[in-house]
Amino acid sequence: MDAPVLTADMVSAKGVRAAAKRLAGKAVRTPLLENAVLNERAGGRILLKPEMLQHYGSFKFRGAYNLIAQLNPEQRKAGVLAWSSGNHAQGVAYAAKLMGASAVIVMPEDAPRVKMNNVRALGAEIVTYDRYTQDREEIGGKIMAERGLALAPPFDHPHTIEGQGTVALETLEDAVALGLSLDAFIVCCGGGGLTAGCAVYLEDASPETQVWIAEPEGFDESWASIRDGVRRRADVSQHTVCDALASPTPGRLTLPVMERLVRGGLALTEEDVREAMTFAHHTLKLTVEPGGAVALAAVLSGKFDARGKTVALTLSGGNVDPALFAAVLEGRPLPVSTG
Amino acid sequence: MDAPVLTADMVSAKGVRAAAKRLAGKAVRTPLLENAVLNERAGGRILLKPEMLQHYGSFKFRGAYNLIAQLNPEQRKAGVLAWSSGNHAQGVAYAAKLMGASAVIVMPEDAPRVKMNNVRALGAEIVTYDRYTQDREEIGGKIMAERGLALAPPFDHPHTIEGQGTVALETLEDAVALGLSLDAFIVCCGGGGLTAGCAVYLEDASPETQVWIAEPEGFDESWASIRDGVRRRADVSQHTVCDALASPTPGRLTLPVMERLVRGGLALTEEDVREAMTFAHHTLKLTVEPGGAVALAAVLSGKFDARGKTVALTLSGGNVDPALFAAVLEGRPLPVSTG
Repeated sequence: MDAPVLTADMVSAKGVRAAAKRLAGKAVRTPLLENAVLNERAGGRILLKPEMLQHYGSFKFRGAYNLIAQLNPEQRKAGVLAWSSGNHAQGVAYAAKLMGASAVIVMPEDAPRVKMNNVRALGAEIVTYDRYTQDREEIGGKIMAERGLALAPPFDHPHTIEGQGTVALETLEDAVALGLSLDAFIVCCGGGGLTAGCAVYLEDASPETQVWIAEPEGFDESWASIRDGVRRRADVSQHTVCDALASPTPGRLTLPVMERLVRGGLALTEEDVREAMTFAHHTLKLTVEPGGAVALAAVLSGKFDARGKTVALTLSGGNVDPALFAAVLEGRPLPVSTG
Repeated sequence: MDAPVLTADMVSAKGVRAAAKRLAGKAVRTPLLENAVLNERAGGRILLKPEMLQHYGSFKFRGAYNLIAQLNPEQRKAGVLAWSSGNHAQGVAYAAKLMGASAVIVMPEDAPRVKMNNVRALGAEIVTYDRYTQDREEIGGKIMAERGLALAPPFDHPHTIEGQGTVALETLEDAVALGLSLDAFIVCCGGGGLTAGCAVYLEDASPETQVWIAEPEGFDESWASIRDGVRRRADVSQHTVCDALASPTPGRLTLPVMERLVRGGLALTEEDVREAMTFAHHTLKLTVEPGGAVALAAVLSGKFDARGKTVALTLSGGNVDPALFAAVLEGRPLPVSTG
């Protein structure tokens, strides 16, 4: 039997609520943080959702777990496959481990050893490929067909998106407990899974909250696509320090959701990102990776005007190479990425 | 009228509970964090109390606020004085600011600019001294007498100690909410204010919890004093990277409390501390200063055997010089301290 065609309207706030129930006791219930220095500097009330405190340092575990949990027993027994050199790989590997499912991760053969070792330590099988001559989707598709594996996509699946939406659900719950309503919610945006999940939830639970996305300059194709009403592609030959956000174009499912619900976009420079990472380290005491720092950078740079507002934002991950981090701290040129 | 003589038996769990009420909505209610990688490595369940997320990056705000809040209106109007080159200075300055009290901080003239600027930005007055030729207590005492200021001691006051004890109160509350009881609680120990406050609270609220202290090698005079039943002094001419824990001897009030309630002591090397700071950055995604990392170092080094246990520990602060932090991350020799 073929899988049903997935469409954007399958993503719902109800699905996000169900995901939250599935994730209870499995995902880290990350806190909502606030910092007096940041509030003073922004001139508003800034609420931080620190997903670097999530399992394996990014929000990706949420979507992966929510997806694998909804596979039927045979699918789960057969296992899942994902391609990723980064956060999604670790999220899938850990979620699969918790549910006793096997996982195959297709990674470039020159991926950082640290990430490969993490994935392997979680019990996942790694299949490597040469990213200059081979196509990971082709390799992954072949393995899936041979072994009957289910795909765990990084963002373009309703269950993935709904899992990521629990970030907004928890944020809103904690804000309400503080007696606050959210004027805006700024999301670090790559393929749009986190954004779409959060936006769908907030549309239902807090329609007065404006959803904004933050992207690296040059990889701000999500906002360009939303604004222009036509799918835009980033030039992937250019470099961005925000490796986690370097997806070429928004997802098939995430774009229609974002078109409907995202109010504005913010493009951040490398300098903005470096400043936000340094501020997070020095003042917030949190390790933030470049791609996880863009929403904070939007506030610190003043590109998003938070004066007089209550604004929540995602710090979506913290997996950063120590040499790169040290270079940021000391204001040195960034080392060349190892992939 | 002379101030009453302060004694160790004035410190009580009831006082800690009252402090928690005073601090509600003023201090950051820091979360209780857990990390799957850490648990697996330790072979137990490790609960982390991340006080680098507290106002100005350390638990010190708690004790300072609890003390200033209990001054009478005239005392508060006159203001407070503290001597500190570090975390206590910022805690006092911010607590005083919140309560509209003035604060005078006596700091060495070669204290790091960053800390001086933070204190000044909080509206406190800074009085500098030459730490090679002048005595800060003499200078502070003279100013207090002239201006009728109250002293805000870094640890040796019941109200300071009870304020710090709210760290244990919140930890226990959150652990109980998770259905856990604490086998042990490991505290980063300098003068003993945090330790004494936490120990007094746990004695009452969770008597089955063993309290342990973690100290830097060479500055492990608190445990030596407790163990030997006689006050020991550290050789302050030696260097420690754990500047926040470099107090020469436990407090007059804190030592009797610790003698009664502390079960064991752990001495950590610089290598242990560097490893813990790196682990915290890389895996926990938290910025921890050297002195705030010793309890974690006790678990990671295996000096505290956490296997099969539920253990809470303090990550007591995160104020660390960027150059020192970068050196730790990259495994380089540490830069010479600037004070």
